[in-house]
Amino acid sequence: MVNGYDGSRAAELPPATRELIARRERALGGAYRLFYDQPVSFVMGAGVYLYDADGNAYLDAYNNVPSVGHSHPHVTETVAKQLGTLNTHTRYLTDGLVAYAERLLATHTVGADGSGGSVAQAMFTCTGSEANDLALRIARHYTGATGVVVTANAYHGVTAALAELSPSLGPGVPLGSHVRVVPAPAPGVNFTAAVAWAISDLERHGLRLAAFLADSLFSSDGVLPDPAGFLAPVTEIVHAAGGLYIADEVQSGFGRTGTHMWGYQRHGIAPDIVTMGKPMGNGLPIAGLVARPDVTESFGRQARYFNTFGGNPVCVAAASAVLDVLETEGLPANAAATGAYLKDAATRLADLSPVLGDIRGAGLYLGIDVIAPGTPGDPSGKLAAAIVNGMRDRRVLISATGPQGNVLKVRPPLPFAREHADQFLTALQETIEAVH
Amino acid sequence: MVNGYDGSRAAELPPATRELIARRERALGGAYRLFYDQPVSFVMGAGVYLYDADGNAYLDAYNNVPSVGHSHPHVTETVAKQLGTLNTHTRYLTDGLVAYAERLLATHTVGADGSGGSVAQAMFTCTGSEANDLALRIARHYTGATGVVVTANAYHGVTAALAELSPSLGPGVPLGSHVRVVPAPAPGVNFTAAVAWAISDLERHGLRLAAFLADSLFSSDGVLPDPAGFLAPVTEIVHAAGGLYIADEVQSGFGRTGTHMWGYQRHGIAPDIVTMGKPMGNGLPIAGLVARPDVTESFGRQARYFNTFGGNPVCVAAASAVLDVLETEGLPANAAATGAYLKDAATRLADLSPVLGDIRGAGLYLGIDVIAPGTPGDPSGKLAAAIVNGMRDRRVLISATGPQGNVLKVRPPLPFAREHADQFLTALQETIEAVH
Repeated sequence: MVNGYDGSRAAELPPATRELIARRERALGGAYRLFYDQPVSFVMGAGVYLYDADGNAYLDAYNNVPSVGHSHPHVTETVAKQLGTLNTHTRYLTDGLVAYAERLLATHTVGADGSGGSVAQAMFTCTGSEANDLALRIARHYTGATGVVVTANAYHGVTAALAELSPSLGPGVPLGSHVRVVPAPAPGVNFTAAVAWAISDLERHGLRLAAFLADSLFSSDGVLPDPAGFLAPVTEIVHAAGGLYIADEVQSGFGRTGTHMWGYQRHGIAPDIVTMGKPMGNGLPIAGLVARPDVTESFGRQARYFNTFGGNPVCVAAASAVLDVLETEGLPANAAATGAYLKDAATRLADLSPVLGDIRGAGLYLGIDVIAPGTPGDPSGKLAAAIVNGMRDRRVLISATGPQGNVLKVRPPLPFAREHADQFLTALQETIEAVH
Repeated sequence: MVNGYDGSRAAELPPATRELIARRERALGGAYRLFYDQPVSFVMGAGVYLYDADGNAYLDAYNNVPSVGHSHPHVTETVAKQLGTLNTHTRYLTDGLVAYAERLLATHTVGADGSGGSVAQAMFTCTGSEANDLALRIARHYTGATGVVVTANAYHGVTAALAELSPSLGPGVPLGSHVRVVPAPAPGVNFTAAVAWAISDLERHGLRLAAFLADSLFSSDGVLPDPAGFLAPVTEIVHAAGGLYIADEVQSGFGRTGTHMWGYQRHGIAPDIVTMGKPMGNGLPIAGLVARPDVTESFGRQARYFNTFGGNPVCVAAASAVLDVLETEGLPANAAATGAYLKDAATRLADLSPVLGDIRGAGLYLGIDVIAPGTPGDPSGKLAAAIVNGMRDRRVLISATGPQGNVLKVRPPLPFAREHADQFLTALQETIEAVH
């Protein structure tokens, strides 16, 4: 796993930390991994900072779940009030669920109603995995087909059905026989042709396409946002093959890209199903999907769907508070502005550094290639890990991604301001000077 | 769907309710079902009551999620405090997760350490579906097999992998070719022999058993708790076939049965994996599993597992507060006492009524058979629906279950006291007198 703790520097950890790690391993087992050579332990979060027990502040340039900022008071107050009033399920009527669904749908451009507006319906789950799993069930029901096309290092979730189409989970988790992977949309790759080839290969095996499923920012493939628009021809061949286009917006949604509320809107496409998750409730478990009504109609009638906690009043209150803050604090605009500033400054830094290569991004989601000095262009996951750990030692949180783990993943909470970008850049400059 | 609103009595609803239902259908679509001929709309909950906008109190004899009572102040305060302090994920160290895991594990009797104690590890998800899906992934990884045996009207969740082994979802959701169903453990069924036959049928098809998966109360099969102990021989044949025994405690766990913290403990068995959900966080989305460490070891090493919101500090705080309240308010003991009182009184009522048949239960989970008068013993889903709706008109919330929908499902929050049982019994008596 990229940026996983392996215990090799355990002896350098404080005794209390070693003891907590030992208890954790006994109680939770080996599936639970920690970040960093020297894991971090937090007791408080506020805005774009996390704090350890000694009061040290860590700049959070990594976490997109607390999207409107750690411990945001409006979210806390809204959730606390709702939790003290009513929390039940969707088989009783509640106003909040319907009002939130309407508000969420108004931000989407899925399907067409003939007047340029959109027509869609929302369904709620607790996690992005559940949302993608449900999208897959709906797509299979609608198309009567099973085939799925994903990218080479895609990650779409941890249910049994999603693990088998998430190559980034590694060779310990086999892909399904109905799954085809295509190269990520990097320079030199004819992405549309690759998808077309994968579809024809499915058909040669007697399988038809149920869905093409992609993260609109291709995060786990190394953050590949450009050029905006390259996904448009993919939607056409997916539809021509009878499949659905599922936009996985768990990473790219809720204003992260700055210019648009949803990553697919950067590409000017209208997916058939859009899945959402992580930042939706600022850390309260809420996720979901929106879809064309004709796509969900037969599934809804024949299979129904009930998720005990999905769309409950407390999680909906959190999600509603998140939309409030995105609007009142102008966070998408901040993501655009700070993101552009950060990308420009990081690009200037990379121009002067032998270990930083290409820098890509949209809004407050940046991918920074780390390359081996002396062998220009060669990706170096090892150096990226050293930088990630060096940043941690300077109390700035990032991680790495991509098939070779050599892409620095910079994805802070959206209130990240210019001063935070400057703190990040200073730490990055110090770190790259130190590591080679 | 049992107890689903079908719109046939829409004209009797207040205009505001009709309008909200219309908006809901537009925004959420047909997969979302409402309870009752006349859906109910709530704005507040406290203890064992839910309240509509006019201040009418409905006695909640149905909801097991708000297990320690609706809007319990200790849960609200604990969650609000944690949400205002820190909410992050499990790849940073936090004390609360480890402490809760240790506390939860201490309540289980899974695996044996040679000294009569238990050895197990915990993993956290957000929903019972995710917990069962993960248990299935682990079982398949551990056994290298795919076959699963479930009961005839089982329900284990809504992911793609679980829907295909949840026959209660109905004919619109096909079962997987690797799934075998056995008759529910009702009188006259040799349950152990049925499981053995299903395993041999799997083997005849070239499939081996990965897991036997059962709700320890067989809720969706009609609530079948007795005689305690009948599951013991099943564990033996499952193990002999190389499979794992997965106890689904989403319904029967956290003190619901009164005499034991976990439903499997009533049967004196030690499952290989135990899954938990609904009442775990009193409505905050937290769920999970505990398992023998040797069962999770290889999965953890090769596949790892990360669930973005799973085990986050806020959901863990809610779960920890639930354990606090179960202890300080003695709720399992109350479930045993009130449950016994309720079962005895309902049995006396049934002895005098031509429409009530067998009554089964453990703690505060009762199943009451509804039968057609004049044809003694014949189950009547239609009469059960009339009773469920008649109870709703008397402001008491229950539902129905079982393959024919004729079993009244009585499953209140655990602070349900004798006075609430009396209110329930009065309404039940009035209702059965009114419906036939």
